[in-house]
Amino acid sequence: MKKLTVGIIGAGRIGKVHAISITNNVPEATIKWIADYKLEAIGSWADEMGIPNKTDNHMDILNDPEVDAVLICSSTDTHSQFVIDAARAGKHIFCEKPVDLSIDKIKAALAEVEKAGVKLQIGFNRRFDHNFRTIKRMVLEGKIGDPHIIKITSRDPAPPPASYVKVSGGIFNDMTIHDFDMARFLSGSEADEVYVAGAVLVDPAIGEAGDIDTALITIKMKNGSIVNIDNSRKAAYGYDQRAEVFGSKGKLESGNDTASTVTLSTEEAVTSEKPLYFFLERYMDSFRDEMKEFIDAVVNDKPTPVQGIDGLKPALIAQAALKSYKENRPVKLSEVE
Amino acid sequence: MKKLTVGIIGAGRIGKVHAISITNNVPEATIKWIADYKLEAIGSWADEMGIPNKTDNHMDILNDPEVDAVLICSSTDTHSQFVIDAARAGKHIFCEKPVDLSIDKIKAALAEVEKAGVKLQIGFNRRFDHNFRTIKRMVLEGKIGDPHIIKITSRDPAPPPASYVKVSGGIFNDMTIHDFDMARFLSGSEADEVYVAGAVLVDPAIGEAGDIDTALITIKMKNGSIVNIDNSRKAAYGYDQRAEVFGSKGKLESGNDTASTVTLSTEEAVTSEKPLYFFLERYMDSFRDEMKEFIDAVVNDKPTPVQGIDGLKPALIAQAALKSYKENRPVKLSEVE
Amino acid sequence: MKKLTVGIIGAGRIGKVHAISITNNVPEATIKWIADYKLEAIGSWADEMGIPNKTDNHMDILNDPEVDAVLICSSTDTHSQFVIDAARAGKHIFCEKPVDLSIDKIKAALAEVEKAGVKLQIGFNRRFDHNFRTIKRMVLEGKIGDPHIIKITSRDPAPPPASYVKVSGGIFNDMTIHDFDMARFLSGSEADEVYVAGAVLVDPAIGEAGDIDTALITIKMKNGSIVNIDNSRKAAYGYDQRAEVFGSKGKLESGNDTASTVTLSTEEAVTSEKPLYFFLERYMDSFRDEMKEFIDAVVNDKPTPVQGIDGLKPALIAQAALKSYKENRPVKLSEVE
Amino acid sequence: MKKLTVGIIGAGRIGKVHAISITNNVPEATIKWIADYKLEAIGSWADEMGIPNKTDNHMDILNDPEVDAVLICSSTDTHSQFVIDAARAGKHIFCEKPVDLSIDKIKAALAEVEKAGVKLQIGFNRRFDHNFRTIKRMVLEGKIGDPHIIKITSRDPAPPPASYVKVSGGIFNDMTIHDFDMARFLSGSEADEVYVAGAVLVDPAIGEAGDIDTALITIKMKNGSIVNIDNSRKAAYGYDQRAEVFGSKGKLESGNDTASTVTLSTEEAVTSEKPLYFFLERYMDSFRDEMKEFIDAVVNDKPTPVQGIDGLKPALIAQAALKSYKENRPVKLSEVE
Repeated sequence: MKKLTVGIIGAGRIGKVHAISITNNVPEATIKWIADYKLEAIGSWADEMGIPNKTDNHMDILNDPEVDAVLICSSTDTHSQFVIDAARAGKHIFCEKPVDLSIDKIKAALAEVEKAGVKLQIGFNRRFDHNFRTIKRMVLEGKIGDPHIIKITSRDPAPPPASYVKVSGGIFNDMTIHDFDMARFLSGSEADEVYVAGAVLVDPAIGEAGDIDTALITIKMKNGSIVNIDNSRKAAYGYDQRAEVFGSKGKLESGNDTASTVTLSTEEAVTSEKPLYFFLERYMDSFRDEMKEFIDAVVNDKPTPVQGIDGLKPALIAQAALKSYKENRPVKLSEVE
Repeated sequence: MKKLTVGIIGAGRIGKVHAISITNNVPEATIKWIADYKLEAIGSWADEMGIPNKTDNHMDILNDPEVDAVLICSSTDTHSQFVIDAARAGKHIFCEKPVDLSIDKIKAALAEVEKAGVKLQIGFNRRFDHNFRTIKRMVLEGKIGDPHIIKITSRDPAPPPASYVKVSGGIFNDMTIHDFDMARFLSGSEADEVYVAGAVLVDPAIGEAGDIDTALITIKMKNGSIVNIDNSRKAAYGYDQRAEVFGSKGKLESGNDTASTVTLSTEEAVTSEKPLYFFLERYMDSFRDEMKEFIDAVVNDKPTPVQGIDGLKPALIAQAALKSYKENRPVKLSEVE
Repeated sequence: MKKLTVGIIGAGRIGKVHAISITNNVPEATIKWIADYKLEAIGSWADEMGIPNKTDNHMDILNDPEVDAVLICSSTDTHSQFVIDAARAGKHIFCEKPVDLSIDKIKAALAEVEKAGVKLQIGFNRRFDHNFRTIKRMVLEGKIGDPHIIKITSRDPAPPPASYVKVSGGIFNDMTIHDFDMARFLSGSEADEVYVAGAVLVDPAIGEAGDIDTALITIKMKNGSIVNIDNSRKAAYGYDQRAEVFGSKGKLESGNDTASTVTLSTEEAVTSEKPLYFFLERYMDSFRDEMKEFIDAVVNDKPTPVQGIDGLKPALIAQAALKSYKENRPVKLSEVE
Repeated sequence: MKKLTVGIIGAGRIGKVHAISITNNVPEATIKWIADYKLEAIGSWADEMGIPNKTDNHMDILNDPEVDAVLICSSTDTHSQFVIDAARAGKHIFCEKPVDLSIDKIKAALAEVEKAGVKLQIGFNRRFDHNFRTIKRMVLEGKIGDPHIIKITSRDPAPPPASYVKVSGGIFNDMTIHDFDMARFLSGSEADEVYVAGAVLVDPAIGEAGDIDTALITIKMKNGSIVNIDNSRKAAYGYDQRAEVFGSKGKLESGNDTASTVTLSTEEAVTSEKPLYFFLERYMDSFRDEMKEFIDAVVNDKPTPVQGIDGLKPALIAQAALKSYKENRPVKLSEVE
């Protein structure tokens, strides 16, 4: 079997995560290149993993005829251009979320992918999480009948610096985007209308930067189900990631993952483990599994499990959410499409 | 100690519940009268409990100088008038919720109570539930800091007949009214603005009757916290009554009560008990405790724990919710006050 | 319907518990007498409940032809004689556990009951606990097939004074006796052989008094199942009362009851409620239900749910356990019968 | 950094598990050899992992001067001889449990290891399990004071063929040996006396083969704590692996691991995930972590976390347990040492 040859663009945290997944768990692929616009930013881990080539120019990877696929793990503002470059070079693409903050740029990138006929997978890793995918499977099996109410709790352990939210596109683009994807994933439907009640309750600096840090979001889906998302930039007890789907025949709920199942009972209290602290702990296995499925889709010429449209739709919901928050009214997706 | 002498107006299900509570658990009070406009509707349980006097005219109770307090357990449309009658007769009053569907009538009744200087307690029994009162106590103790997000799940096990919702005032007045009270109770604040996403997903007949059966409600409270209520008229697995308060230092969550703690593990699955089926099972102890506190407030001349204003405010939220649903926009409480 | 007339012998804690149960929850019975050998020990609660007659001589009750049944709630050393007296007087009998510390005295009492043809129920209230009776019901329904291993955890929140264990008959007679009954109840079989590993780990004074405070007990039942009981006189976190039945098709487990379902998550930990502190909290409903079933058995001439033999058998296991502990070997029940 | 060079003896299931651990997670080591007495039994996975050398003679590995350490993963009857061979060759040794069924052979092997001054680690992987190691850590931190009662539940999902128990040394040597180790690990003490109540309840063929399939084991530890182990060869619901340590200040409990945290509530029941099915699922991470610590001990010249004596002691308890079962009496460890 000829192994798939892969290049990684972006040597930051998430680039490293994918490099580890491939090295340890995807024998069908081998990493030939790692690129970062700051060459010196490529950590020694790249050598230790035996990645043979480094560059500060992603085109070196795209121009290598041996390369079959690239992973785009650079900063968000480069995603859409790199997708276009890769598509034109005929490489299959795994691209981190969000594809872009601009709807137009996302559309342009997706158009180029379509024209090139290459595969594209968006990095919505939570779809591969053992809890959420179990809920999804059971919904599809009809265990709870038709979904009526979907509740997604998504709270970070600590707020980012205010400087970050100025460039990230704000809470809806850097954090809730995952939950918008989850709303589509769990409901099996598209958003029709969004209403946001938002507040600055965690850090005034976030408010001064023009963003909010607390949100209750209501989404009416086209199939009639109603979604509730609650976000906070700071959950004192750690990373709170739960979902519930309530339907005509019952409900499915997932709790948080913990480091152990141990409970301590003393004169003071009964205590158990807090949720795993942040996304690298909680979602490590999902990063591995999304990469396995991407490589599998390329090697065996199957559709990728998270497609280009799945990069566009949550971005549109984010736009509508922002508009709803600013205008304090429900906003139809048709207003932003 | 002279015992408090009590009369009960309305011999239906809830009148009986309160009669049992007083007989079994409130030695400070004795029931002298039971009234129902249909005399034959008074069950034999009244005799078995040793209630000495029956009447089909509530004025017989109010005219009895021995009577200290009355429990108004009749149909909703009679509440406000009976409150006025009782206040004028100088009797202390326990009144079931809702006080009335008309804001004006509630205000008129409260005005009469104030003029008479009698005590009034509204039957928001869930405030006395062991789970919700534990959350409230811990919030007051500062365990979770300032409340940011409050989530209330309230789902009935089976929908009422469509004929019922026509007279009940609809889901917001007959069902969510408890959750509106809980929002105030858990947040320690008043509602500022309400938004409702509603749907008819359970029973089309409810929709034809002009009501909805599924709702996601967002309330912005004056202290900045945001409340989410989700309602369904039909939870296949039983009565789903949970709450979560998330704040600056952590979160408090309550689950459902069950008939036992037993878990069965077999080749097929690990199964545990469903929630208690409906409000008489789940909230029986809370009915007892609200009655104990009402009698205690009268006997020892203390403020009642749920006052007249607590009957008015949720009714206003219900009005705003209805307006929000009809006009599909957030509605300020000031619009309906 | 003529009400059953009942007398209570012994006005201590457990006598009061039964008086409350009858007054509040058993309309078929009325309490005519309360006896205590110290007349002044009868609390004012007896008056408040409206019990009309007091005496310091239990024979006053037994000689009253109106009395149908007596509850023997006096100290253990009087039980067997009072059972005999009551049987001879033709009264139906509810007797607290243990019937006696002497096997011979128990047998003598049971013989007299049999001769008189009166009903006898032993106060093994845990059989009526919602958790244990759910396990029992599911075992009988065949949910877990044949029972193989039964595990009973029974730990008190605080040790009794050493003076108490000198007169109580020791841990096996005052504490484990309930667990021996539970072993028979859950297995549906009789004990064949007992082995005890005991220790003094909680309070040296208990050891000096000739007793142990910590025990792991193994019982081989006649149907082949094996029972494990673990006892401690002191669980720092409260009253620990759990059971597990493991069988050919699965397992059933019950946990502890708690005051609420509330969980608190903070930066420090996730904490939940401790077990209810002691038997009056945990088992209050079971005391009510055993009394309801006793009265029902007398009124409707049905077999009592816990019979005389159920008072004898656990006492025999206690004897064998004591012998096993002293001789450090497994002891057959046939050695003590 | 020079990498540690490792050879694996035995290419069966557990040999492969360790090969995967090293390849994916232990960059400090590289596997140079894989040996199996049946050369054709070495799966293609060895090639895929890039293990360069295969042999049917373990001495080829031991004679290779480049090899620093060996993993003995062959059948139990070869362990002690291979330990001796490896020690004489000056190789550090990781040896699967049990070291041998014969106490004398274990002692001979340990003596040779001591003489050679090489490191030895025994494969009691459960010490590295996230749940058990959390309990151990908290015990050491004094969270529950002095341990009084330790309860270990260890039940397999399906019985082995009767032919297997004839050669395995029986339930105490092939299954409970892990629990004997856990008793020592969690109590921090050595066994003093053992009592076994055993039965054949799962498969008569196991009884005909001279073994039992169900056991309740009591161990008195030298520090006064008492251990209970319950074993079954067949838990219908999967692999049941739990522990509880009860002490003077509280208790620690661990539950089973599951594939997800998802709960499904329907009209029929509330159902959650069964325990992970068997040891490869449940303990995969512990196999990885024991290997990381072994390599770390060799590379950095630290004591191994599970030493030779930890291979001997559980074997002695197994001997005493067998004697106890056969003679139906508590057996002192001193009788078999």
